Parts: sequence; C-alpha cells; structure tokens
Amino acid sequence: MTKQSAQNKALQELAGVSYSETTSQSAIDAIKKHRQAKPSTEQLISAILEGNITALSRAITLIESRNKKHSEQSNAIIKGCLPHANKSVRIGITGVPGVGKSTFIESFGKHLSQKGKKIAVLAIDPSSSVTKGSILGDKTRMEDLVKDVNVYIRPSPSGESLGGVARKTRETIILCEAAGFDTILIETVGVGQSETAVHSMVDFFLLLKLAGAGDELQGIKRGIIEMADSIAINKADGDNMRSAKIAKLEFNRAIHLYPKKDSGWTPKVVLCSALHNEGIDVIWDMIDSYVSQTKSNGYFDHRRHEQNKFWLIETIKDQLHADFFNNDLIKKELKIQVELIEAQKTTPFAAADYLLRLKVNL
Amino acid sequence: MTKQSAQNKALQELAGVSYSETTSQSAIDAIKKHRQAKPSTEQLISAILEGNITALSRAITLIESRNKKHSEQSNAIIKGCLPHANKSVRIGITGVPGVGKSTFIESFGKHLSQKGKKIAVLAIDPSSSVTKGSILGDKTRMEDLVKDVNVYIRPSPSGESLGGVARKTRETIILCEAAGFDTILIETVGVGQSETAVHSMVDFFLLLKLAGAGDELQGIKRGIIEMADSIAINKADGDNMRSAKIAKLEFNRAIHLYPKKDSGWTPKVVLCSALHNEGIDVIWDMIDSYVSQTKSNGYFDHRRHEQNKFWLIETIKDQLHADFFNNDLIKKELKIQVELIEAQKTTPFAAADYLLRLKVNL
Repeated sequence: MTKQSAQNKALQELAGVSYSETTSQSAIDAIKKHRQAKPSTEQLISAILEGNITALSRAITLIESRNKKHSEQSNAIIKGCLPHANKSVRIGITGVPGVGKSTFIESFGKHLSQKGKKIAVLAIDPSSSVTKGSILGDKTRMEDLVKDVNVYIRPSPSGESLGGVARKTRETIILCEAAGFDTILIETVGVGQSETAVHSMVDFFLLLKLAGAGDELQGIKRGIIEMADSIAINKADGDNMRSAKIAKLEFNRAIHLYPKKDSGWTPKVVLCSALHNEGIDVIWDMIDSYVSQTKSNGYFDHRRHEQNKFWLIETIKDQLHADFFNNDLIKKELKIQVELIEAQKTTPFAAADYLLRLKVNL
Repeated sequence: MTKQSAQNKALQELAGVSYSETTSQSAIDAIKKHRQAKPSTEQLISAILEGNITALSRAITLIESRNKKHSEQSNAIIKGCLPHANKSVRIGITGVPGVGKSTFIESFGKHLSQKGKKIAVLAIDPSSSVTKGSILGDKTRMEDLVKDVNVYIRPSPSGESLGGVARKTRETIILCEAAGFDTILIETVGVGQSETAVHSMVDFFLLLKLAGAGDELQGIKRGIIEMADSIAINKADGDNMRSAKIAKLEFNRAIHLYPKKDSGWTPKVVLCSALHNEGIDVIWDMIDSYVSQTKSNGYFDHRRHEQNKFWLIETIKDQLHADFFNNDLIKKELKIQVELIEAQKTTPFAAADYLLRLKVNL
C-alpha cells in the first residue's frame, strides 16, 4: 500500500475487509476507488449535525492530523459546526493516578446516559505519546460506557505539546457539541500544567481525591484546589468511610481558606464511591444546580467569554515565543548571552535588547 | 576653571551659591557653562565605585530617564559597575498598607546600620505615579533613617509599567551594590503583581502581617504566603500580644501546608514590634542564618542564576507581546476577531492564526 493510500485509509473508519487472492483486478479497482472517495467538507458537516459518529470521528482525525491540507479542511468543518456548538455543559475531571478516574467516569457517564444525556468523553494528556495512552487510551477500562449509544469516547491526541493538545481538544468540543452531545467530560491526569488548560475550557472543574491517613493536604498542588468547583472524595466505602469523612472535614476547611469565587458558587466537598455507584447522583445534581445558578447570574456566559479571550491571547503568545526562541541563531546567541550574564559582563535586560535587535535584523 | 575641574565640581555636593544681579555677563556665562558640564560615563563609574552618593543618584536618574541618549549612557555605567556588583544580600519586604512597612524599615535599617551595614532602600510601586508616591515617596516617614550616613533611600521610579519599574529597580540594585551597599531592602505594597516582581529579584522575601481577629487567613493572596521565606507579625505589642500569638500559630499551620522549599529553608513565623524595636534583631539573625545556609548548600547562587534567566526571558517576551499587541492594525483587528468569536463565526485559534498572518504581512 502506498503512503498516500495508507493515509486515506486512515481517514476512513469502515470495518476491515480482507480480500481473497482470487478477487478480480476490476473488483479491486472498484473497491479502491470507493475507498478513496472522501466525503466533502459539506457532507461531513451535515453528517456531524445529524449526529453521525463516523463523520464526527473522521472530522476529529482531520483536526488531529499534521497534514496542512487536512487542517484546511478541518478549519472549514469547525467553522460550519460553530453556529451549532456551545450548547453543552463542559465538565473537567482531574485527580492523581490511582484516584479512580476511569471508574468514576464510567459510573458518572452511565448515570447521565440513564438521565437521557448524550455524553462525549475527551482527555487532555500531553504525556500520552510517551506513556502509550495513560488515560482513556485503554478503553477497556470503561467497558460498559464504550458500548453505550449515548456515549462517545475519544482519547487524547498524542505526540503534541500541551498547547497543541489543548487546541485540538477545544476544537473537538465544538464538533461534539454540533453532533448533539450535551455533556462534555474532559479528563486529565493530576500532574503538571494540563489542569490549567482543562480548567480554561470547562464550565465546572471537579477534583477527585482519595481519603488518606490524615495528611491529605501535604504536597497537594494548591493551585488545583483553588481551581476546583468541587472536590469529590472517591472510594468512600467500607473501611475507608471513616478516613473519607475526616478528609471531607479537612478539605472543607482548606477550601474555605480561599477567597470567594467570582461565580458566586461556594465549592463543596462530597463523598462518593464510583465502584459502588454511590454519591454519583449527588455530584450530578450539584453540577446541575451550579449550571442553573451561574446561568442565572450571568457567570456561565461570562466565563466562556473570558475563556475564548484567554485562548486567543495564549495562542498568539505561544506562537510569538515559538517564532523567536526556536530560531537557530537566537538559540545559539541566547546561550552565549546567558553565559555573559553569569560572568557579570552583561545584564538580563541588555542581553534581551541585544537578542531582540538580532531578530529584527534577521 | 578648566572643563575638567568644572566636571569634578559637578560631582561634588557644594552648598548652593546665589549670585547678585551685578555679576558680570562673563561670569554668568562661565557659571552657565560649568553648570552644563556633565560628568563623563567614566567619571560617574569611578565616583560610584568610590561610594559617591551624588554620582550614584545621577546615574540612577539616567536609568530612570526616558531619553534615549541617557539610556545609552546608563547602559554603559551599568556595564562598568557590573563586575563590582552582586555582593549584597537583597531582601524583599511586602505587606498591605497599614501593616507598618515604613516603621519596620526604619527600625530594621537602624539596626543594620548599627551593625556596620550599608543599606540601600528601594521600592517597587508601579502605582506611585497615581498615588503620588504611596511608599518611600514620603521620606519623612523614615525621619531617622534618611539622615543615616550608612543608608541610601530611593523612591520607586514612577510613570512606568510594572515591567519598566522592575527593570529600573534591578539596574539600580547593580549600581547600589557597586557603590558599596551590602544590604538592599526592596519594599513593595502588598497588592497586585509587584510581589512577584520583587520576589524575582531578592534573596529573601519577608511578608509583614498584622494580628487580626482570628480570620487572618481570609482573603489573603495565598501565592504571596507561598513566596514568603518568613512572615513577621508586626505591632505585636501591648493589647495586641494575645492576638499576635494566635496569628503566629495560624500562620505556622498555613505555612506548613506548602511543599518544602527548594532552598531547604523552612519558613518561619516571628513576632515583632517595629515601633518599639522589638524582635527586629531576631529577624536579622534569621535572615543572616538563611544566607549562610543557602550559600553553603548552593541555593543562593542558584536562585540568582535562575532570576537572571527569568528576567532575560521575561523581558524578551514582554517586548514581543508589546510589538504585536500595540500595533494599531492588530489592535483594530483583534477587536473585530473577539466580536466574531462571540458571534460564533470563528474560534479563538482561527482568529489567532489570522492575526499572526496579518502581522507577518505588515
């Protein structure tokens, strides 16, 4: 198979067909032709708007492609979907490995599906190319959810910087919303900067925690607690119940040390057991009342507005930095300037002026 | 008087002389001429290295000037001073208005002066152009300190962005160190982003707090607590003593929730009364042992190294952003793109791509 046809095939999600050696050449040609026929941008858009999952997956694959031609098409598809997007509730879910995120999403997703919701499950995990899909990559961890017709699961795009992953996920949200998904769950692993990215693209940010041995607050990334609209202490069952209740008290104390949120919402700490489907309904009811409250006080729309501006400005800044710092001459000269600063032969400011002048004259 | 001697004279702080109306025209011309005679860059550098305060003040005025010719000269002066800089302890002091920063610096400065230190007191207050010098501007609040021959006080440069103020203050530190000041105190008002700037240019960051009515932790900018190398609870005297001790316990608890510092230093909470010169010696001894500890474990030099890199990169980024976002066409088009995003006609990413292409084609 040529490289080109391999790429085309990768864009089509038809069930695999194996051909016997005896298939006539004309039949092979006809099949090839049919396989190569790609749906037009317009066809994809209208199929997505009808809720066609194959079309949705194809369009997301175009978003994730590094091929320039694909990104032109995906931009056109996003533009076509935009007027039909924006109508979901976007929920961010984070927590360190081991906290039970997959089990929680399985349980939470089933609960929402039973309530008639259509749920898209996405992920942001810039490390997934290294760890081979640490989250969502292994869909078998969500056995029931993956079979649910109301649920669409898509792993994190891989092999990208956080900025790249974030952009692709935000664009994927638009397509999912246009395809009729009214609840978007975005999972991220509880380490690094990905929380900030997810926080900047969701309406509600849920932090999953475990009850520990009394030192839950040690070593926590406090910024993440500050971002959380609520904390759910998972695995609150059986022998864990006592320590879960203690943890609830402690997190309640911690969470109230922060200044009041702009949303007017007071973050809550709740207990749940995703494995036993306990407390899951309470969490959804809480999110539901958060949405009502922030829609009526105007914060819901305000936050989305601010998020749009944030991504606009961040994308521009990221690109400006990349243009400058990835330049080979700048890279070389930057190293020299850092050495001169250390030798007390120049200041950071004089060095910056020098490097900026260098770039202008390139 | 020869030109050379006139220049020398300009470097000396002679009492003003008033000339009678009957002074001959030739005398007036001579006076005008030698008044205009400005010391050369080399003269200023060697005078600064000799500890000449007038030369130091002149050079700082050149740093603060917006005149391009002045900045060329100040850059040359900084370069000449650089090999002689870097030998001080730089201490950042912050706290909300009313906490008693001026009184603290007065008391702390006198204590250091008595120990034979030479102290430069600088400030970072980007708002000072508006509030007409809210900190240090009114030197009368430091009546004793201002008369102390071991102390040099310089208010915050005004009429500048935080970035501009920060740069000028960092450059001023270099000159003060070259002039023989071994302890640099940098005051900032406890609001906004200026703490981050000060934290990025000092070796030790001291947060001044007041004992309150049990709710000290409410509304605190937690980021500032996290930055602090120590917290001093001021006005711990008389009737305040009890609540100060309670506050000490609470801050001790709060401060220990944070992850261990890279410096290996455990932040401390101490009580003091700047007005009654109580606890001031303890604070200096603490900073002194911090310096010993971090110098021996290598963190002291490491932090300065990281700070240099931080200011280099930040200065470049600031300038790249300014070049882009201050462009008139970009300003106009950015507004349009934000409106298109709100109308769901484009995404933040497509808008960013559009604006970046626009700039490239300018």
